[in-house]
Amino acid sequence: MEDPSGGREFAAIDRIAARLAVATGPPPSGEVWIGDDAAVVRVGGGVLVIAADALVDGVHADLALTSVADLGWKALAVNVSDLAAMGCVASRALVTVSGPPTTDLDGLYDGLAAASAAFGCPIVGGDLTGAPRLVVSVTVVGDGAVVPPPVTRGGARAGDEVWVSGPLGAAAAGLRALRAGAGGPTPPDARLVGAYARPEPRVAEGVAARESGATAMIDVSDGFALDLGHVLGASGVGVELDHLPVAAGARPGDALGGGDDYELVWCCPPDTAVEDGFRARGLRPPVRIGRCVADPGQRVLAGAPLGAAGWRHDIG
Amino acid sequence: MEDPSGGREFAAIDRIAARLAVATGPPPSGEVWIGDDAAVVRVGGGVLVIAADALVDGVHADLALTSVADLGWKALAVNVSDLAAMGCVASRALVTVSGPPTTDLDGLYDGLAAASAAFGCPIVGGDLTGAPRLVVSVTVVGDGAVVPPPVTRGGARAGDEVWVSGPLGAAAAGLRALRAGAGGPTPPDARLVGAYARPEPRVAEGVAARESGATAMIDVSDGFALDLGHVLGASGVGVELDHLPVAAGARPGDALGGGDDYELVWCCPPDTAVEDGFRARGLRPPVRIGRCVADPGQRVLAGAPLGAAGWRHDIG
Repeated sequence: MEDPSGGREFAAIDRIAARLAVATGPPPSGEVWIGDDAAVVRVGGGVLVIAADALVDGVHADLALTSVADLGWKALAVNVSDLAAMGCVASRALVTVSGPPTTDLDGLYDGLAAASAAFGCPIVGGDLTGAPRLVVSVTVVGDGAVVPPPVTRGGARAGDEVWVSGPLGAAAAGLRALRAGAGGPTPPDARLVGAYARPEPRVAEGVAARESGATAMIDVSDGFALDLGHVLGASGVGVELDHLPVAAGARPGDALGGGDDYELVWCCPPDTAVEDGFRARGLRPPVRIGRCVADPGQRVLAGAPLGAAGWRHDIG
Repeated sequence: MEDPSGGREFAAIDRIAARLAVATGPPPSGEVWIGDDAAVVRVGGGVLVIAADALVDGVHADLALTSVADLGWKALAVNVSDLAAMGCVASRALVTVSGPPTTDLDGLYDGLAAASAAFGCPIVGGDLTGAPRLVVSVTVVGDGAVVPPPVTRGGARAGDEVWVSGPLGAAAAGLRALRAGAGGPTPPDARLVGAYARPEPRVAEGVAARESGATAMIDVSDGFALDLGHVLGASGVGVELDHLPVAAGARPGDALGGGDDYELVWCCPPDTAVEDGFRARGLRPPVRIGRCVADPGQRVLAGAPLGAAGWRHDIG
């Protein structure tokens, strides 16, 4: 289903941001508004990171393949991941649920509650209202008064190395297995299905990347090539990638274009002790995959052009 | 259209709150979670007030009667009003828009931008996604580190006087005029229509009420009797009302049961200099309408039982 922009989401967001800037002016110094994984705002003397994303039954989830509890989990997880992509930790959430009277609210809140406990992010408020199709909109807020400050998409410089928090493609492979597995001889691989249905935002990895000196960061929600493209575009650089780690059970195309992985991709000056920082925190080692280059038109992986393929599930 | 709770919204919210409390425990001291107009939370050393409400085309607005720009305005206004009902000021907003490709996004954001400018509350982020029906979910955040602290629904005591920020019923009368006026001989009263389509949250009045010593407060969104009932229930008191001010052009039933007024109702100890505080700020004088009594079963207006009628538009 196409979104309200008729499939031109990114252009629509630019137009909306321009329209809103006319109404209320540009962000004050130190604030980040529309166009990054999360906003950074000063409220009441403090600095916050805050993000909101909505999931829609039939657009972001097929309830014939995954449960409404999975949808609840994912609705919180994708927002926690947006703050992780700034190197920050979500500490409180609000949830608005719009849906028909047939909605399995207990199941939905089972998933939301499980995610809330898993991510240490209590749900403190929200709203219930009627609608013909289930829409779950979540807002998360976290401490933005961190040092170094929250990491945007726009700070990468030529020469920075590109890192990823882990292998990619498991979620896309899981979705394919779910689709094929309905009625098949063997149950689909639970690890791949879990990667799709119950994604784990890389919160500790985001904090470690920020504290080790990340210059730009994003989470892989729409697909690696598309999401890295946002970082390159915002930073005004190109990229030369040597390789891309592919999750066990996934295909290279899943890793390159599959969405819903929620691994983090970031840039760091060379010779940054990234691996030491991750090891000291007991985290899985991150993978260095290439480097930023000055020519913004240069986007290659193992010598071949890096396509912009992605799931675009927001507009699918 | 009924909501996901099948028309039992308030019972569903209680059940959800209990379920979430099992997952993440009760609020820490000084925080207010589910069940008030807004949540009060400590994030990053600061204190925030934060609220989220969703408006749905066909549930909260009939786009044959009011414009999509009005829907945008109202989506922000009702959330700003939720913070006003705590005596607080919304300073930043996030908006998720889910809707079909036919959505008039420019019109919607015209209304959102106008409200954003009018209320001094920039829209700093959000999301666009596809859905069969337009759902606009807004979150607002404001400074909660105010003295006296944010006003909940639960602090009213027997003997407190009950105040309202202005006459009620204009929005209900405006909706009736819109419904009747389509094809009628004269255009509907613009002042009443404006009260319905472009509500003005009583932000300065909320701050004045809090600073003058309000013990409990709510905004009139679902209907005066129903909303005052939430304050009485949370505070464990009853009420004896002498009268209720009715907006020009509205009927007593509009004032008592009509929703969408967004006037504030609050309680204060007797002999509080409420009127002086409002006068000094250049605000319209508030109206004293009665007093709280110890018997929670006592709910009367001018000697007659106060019905619990309300628009219940969330579940209508």
